[in-house]
Amino acid sequence: KQQHPITLKTILGFEEICSVDVWRASVAELLGTAALVFALDTIVISSIQTETKTPNLVMSTLVAIIITILLLATFPISGGHINPIVSFSAVLTGLISITRAVIYILAQCVGGIVGALALKAVVSSRIEQTFSLGGCTLNVVAPGPDGPVVIGLETGQALWLEIICSFIFLFASVWMAFDGRQAKALGRVTICIIIGIVLGLLVFVSTTVTAQKGYAGAGLNPARCLGPALIRGGHLWDGHWVFWVGPAIACVAFGLYTKVIPSQHFHSY
Amino acid sequence: KQQHPITLKTILGFEEICSVDVWRASVAELLGTAALVFALDTIVISSIQTETKTPNLVMSTLVAIIITILLLATFPISGGHINPIVSFSAVLTGLISITRAVIYILAQCVGGIVGALALKAVVSSRIEQTFSLGGCTLNVVAPGPDGPVVIGLETGQALWLEIICSFIFLFASVWMAFDGRQAKALGRVTICIIIGIVLGLLVFVSTTVTAQKGYAGAGLNPARCLGPALIRGGHLWDGHWVFWVGPAIACVAFGLYTKVIPSQHFHSY
Amino acid sequence: KQQHPITLKTILGFEEICSVDVWRASVAELLGTAALVFALDTIVISSIQTETKTPNLVMSTLVAIIITILLLATFPISGGHINPIVSFSAVLTGLISITRAVIYILAQCVGGIVGALALKAVVSSRIEQTFSLGGCTLNVVAPGPDGPVVIGLETGQALWLEIICSFIFLFASVWMAFDGRQAKALGRVTICIIIGIVLGLLVFVSTTVTAQKGYAGAGLNPARCLGPALIRGGHLWDGHWVFWVGPAIACVAFGLYTKVIPSQHFHSY
Amino acid sequence: KQQHPITLKTILGFEEICSVDVWRASVAELLGTAALVFALDTIVISSIQTETKTPNLVMSTLVAIIITILLLATFPISGGHINPIVSFSAVLTGLISITRAVIYILAQCVGGIVGALALKAVVSSRIEQTFSLGGCTLNVVAPGPDGPVVIGLETGQALWLEIICSFIFLFASVWMAFDGRQAKALGRVTICIIIGIVLGLLVFVSTTVTAQKGYAGAGLNPARCLGPALIRGGHLWDGHWVFWVGPAIACVAFGLYTKVIPSQHFHSY
Repeated sequence: KQQHPITLKTILGFEEICSVDVWRASVAELLGTAALVFALDTIVISSIQTETKTPNLVMSTLVAIIITILLLATFPISGGHINPIVSFSAVLTGLISITRAVIYILAQCVGGIVGALALKAVVSSRIEQTFSLGGCTLNVVAPGPDGPVVIGLETGQALWLEIICSFIFLFASVWMAFDGRQAKALGRVTICIIIGIVLGLLVFVSTTVTAQKGYAGAGLNPARCLGPALIRGGHLWDGHWVFWVGPAIACVAFGLYTKVIPSQHFHSY
Repeated sequence: KQQHPITLKTILGFEEICSVDVWRASVAELLGTAALVFALDTIVISSIQTETKTPNLVMSTLVAIIITILLLATFPISGGHINPIVSFSAVLTGLISITRAVIYILAQCVGGIVGALALKAVVSSRIEQTFSLGGCTLNVVAPGPDGPVVIGLETGQALWLEIICSFIFLFASVWMAFDGRQAKALGRVTICIIIGIVLGLLVFVSTTVTAQKGYAGAGLNPARCLGPALIRGGHLWDGHWVFWVGPAIACVAFGLYTKVIPSQHFHSY
Repeated sequence: KQQHPITLKTILGFEEICSVDVWRASVAELLGTAALVFALDTIVISSIQTETKTPNLVMSTLVAIIITILLLATFPISGGHINPIVSFSAVLTGLISITRAVIYILAQCVGGIVGALALKAVVSSRIEQTFSLGGCTLNVVAPGPDGPVVIGLETGQALWLEIICSFIFLFASVWMAFDGRQAKALGRVTICIIIGIVLGLLVFVSTTVTAQKGYAGAGLNPARCLGPALIRGGHLWDGHWVFWVGPAIACVAFGLYTKVIPSQHFHSY
Repeated sequence: KQQHPITLKTILGFEEICSVDVWRASVAELLGTAALVFALDTIVISSIQTETKTPNLVMSTLVAIIITILLLATFPISGGHINPIVSFSAVLTGLISITRAVIYILAQCVGGIVGALALKAVVSSRIEQTFSLGGCTLNVVAPGPDGPVVIGLETGQALWLEIICSFIFLFASVWMAFDGRQAKALGRVTICIIIGIVLGLLVFVSTTVTAQKGYAGAGLNPARCLGPALIRGGHLWDGHWVFWVGPAIACVAFGLYTKVIPSQHFHSY
């Protein structure tokens, strides 16, 4: 209730390095991200294995559901980020300190690796090669009539898609969770459902709108891109920076937006 | 609670030009409309790309969801218009001043342009030509057996459809948000869901009821029609006035309706 | 709270003819019924135009949604009838006076006509002939091998279906809105959703259960049957009385039922 | 409210053997598990019998619904476990005593047998052989070109899948029910729906992700695996220990996780 004066010390929050609670909370972030990576990738495989004409619709619905649930499961422990984009924009809007954000993002990256390892343990290598397995790829090397051809999205186009989708994600869903009055008015479950739906929609849209084979859709979560890239390597590293730079730009734009909009809520009645 | 005396000064509200809050709120309108245009158009492309037999059903459902969420995201900042129809009818029912409405509508038009630009950045020109890309069109020039033929809806029919659909949109959903007592009884989330569903239904109905190729359905939002027309031009300008005049007539009719109905609510218990 | 003594004067309520509020409220009934007729008929066309294997499922779902929303939009103004069945049974249960009911039913009939005219303005005559366009028909003249043949439901069977469906509509949904304690416990939104779902279910059942071409399902709303019959005439007048007499019998039966059931609610806990 | 001191006596809880309430509650566990086994197996049969292209999607949805309902039905009586994994992890998080857990798990195993017997009573032996009938199998003996061949999953892979899926089940859904503050904030119905959805998702994923015939998906409930194995025997006993050891490891990991995370909830506002 009482507004603490915002000092550089609060923003940096170095004393949180020694806080056991921050490190404990980061365990939830780690396991949450691991569960997310494992769930997302198995959902992608299962959706495509299922003989349905609309695998991307099924996939997007399940993605929306699993994200909603994992956010609800981790929210009271760590704040429910499980995504470096959320942690970074939480710093920019002054919700958490830089130290806590760095610890969270590290935990999320480790979680991405754990999730990719868990997937490797249960999936046969044949399936691993058939599917891109949740890795964030811009292009893929496919056999062509005149030797292997690289098909995929141009880096510039992918970067724009990453920036726009990340910004819509922050603008249309995360903001509601960050703004205390909105959060209270809507309730925890509604907000987690909205975040899940927005991400599901963005997955649906970004995987089909480019109609470009080889591009696996917007990343929207650098940690889930890093894990598979570290474990399986190869072409997953091509243009990997896009999945970090794009969201970062979106986070800065979102941070500016939250500063620009009026701090009092609009009331017409 | 206390009814302010309605003077010409309040209605015009010139002093709001200097209000920083109005301009700040208009940023939410601008970005909200941009996100709306981008989301609507990518949803249309994705729905048609998806190999489903009912792309218009999928599209309408997603439109309902995305509008609900964007309204929830902008409601506490600017009142959640992201549509010149809503801003104009809000003036006619005395909720906001003319100055604020003009600023909002300008912001929405700029937002429509930004959204159309964002779309251009991520979509290849091949796809851009295949789909009408959310532009509001009455007709399209198609290759016929005896040279190019213009197929589409007659302007009169389109104008009637625009007036009727806009009025149903205002009568069946926006009114609930404008009437303070209704809004309080139903709650913010319910109202935004209702507005989203009504617009989704109108999209579903207006795209199929005429069974006329070339007509892209009722516009129901002049700002989203203006953006693509300015960016891509061409046949998007044909009959563009319909998407402004139709809703304007509906807004005036709706304004009269709100004056005619009794100001006390009906109570049978 | 205070029970007014029920006199013949209250039941007739002649003084309400001069009440401006009743006439104003009837504007909402008129426009509500017009929107209902327009929406129902365009939904029927759109559902059948959509290439889906289950058009009646889609149609029923959309009917349930649109009725829910229109009831919510008119409820606080006029009580949300938009259906002569509801107005007539509201008289029989003593909720409104006979005068108000007559004014409402007149407004609903005019609304039905306005809706049918609005439909005529936007739909091409080719589509108008392909579909029965929401008109309430018992049979249709179809070309047969030995000249035109009348196919459809027998009048007796249609009357029974009309009585049973109307009574289920009143018994299973409208009663909850009429009974003050139920209405308060469930809340306005829940009740409007229930009424919408019950009508949607009855549409689904009555259009498929007879498996008889030419019969367009139970009318369940005389006003929506009258409008198209007056505008387009022809075979829409065949057996039109069924759609008035059937619901009337159901209303009387429902009136008796509300008198028979105990006035105290049953409590087991 | 008052925190009892945790002594070895409370943890063991030997006095609960004489408690009539514990034994009565175990009846709900027994019947709940029997209903679960019967329902799961009939759902599997019905889903595959239904001529749909996506039987696993239909099945998973129905599994989610039936589990939600059975949990809601048994929750106020016994706490709603109907799964040895839940009972075992409830001991590890200190919610119930060891004695009560042992009684519950015994009841669940007997329930699994009762359910398998009930299924045998109503299903013809032809169908019983066509389907694996909810039994938990790693592999199946199929006729091959060179005599019978054993096809299925390697034991190590199956164990990893069992551990990971059980942990996600505990981490993403059961934890919300175990944590008092979460449970109160979300409400009973929401939590039961979440548990149902998570299990449905895991069923969907685990049956398709391995793309390996003979493997019937993750067990996620040792009691439902034991019943069919005891009644029908044969190859259902192959690797049956996996369905007990895997979840047990997950429970221990989950127990550690609940000790590590901070006991105060995270609050940013």
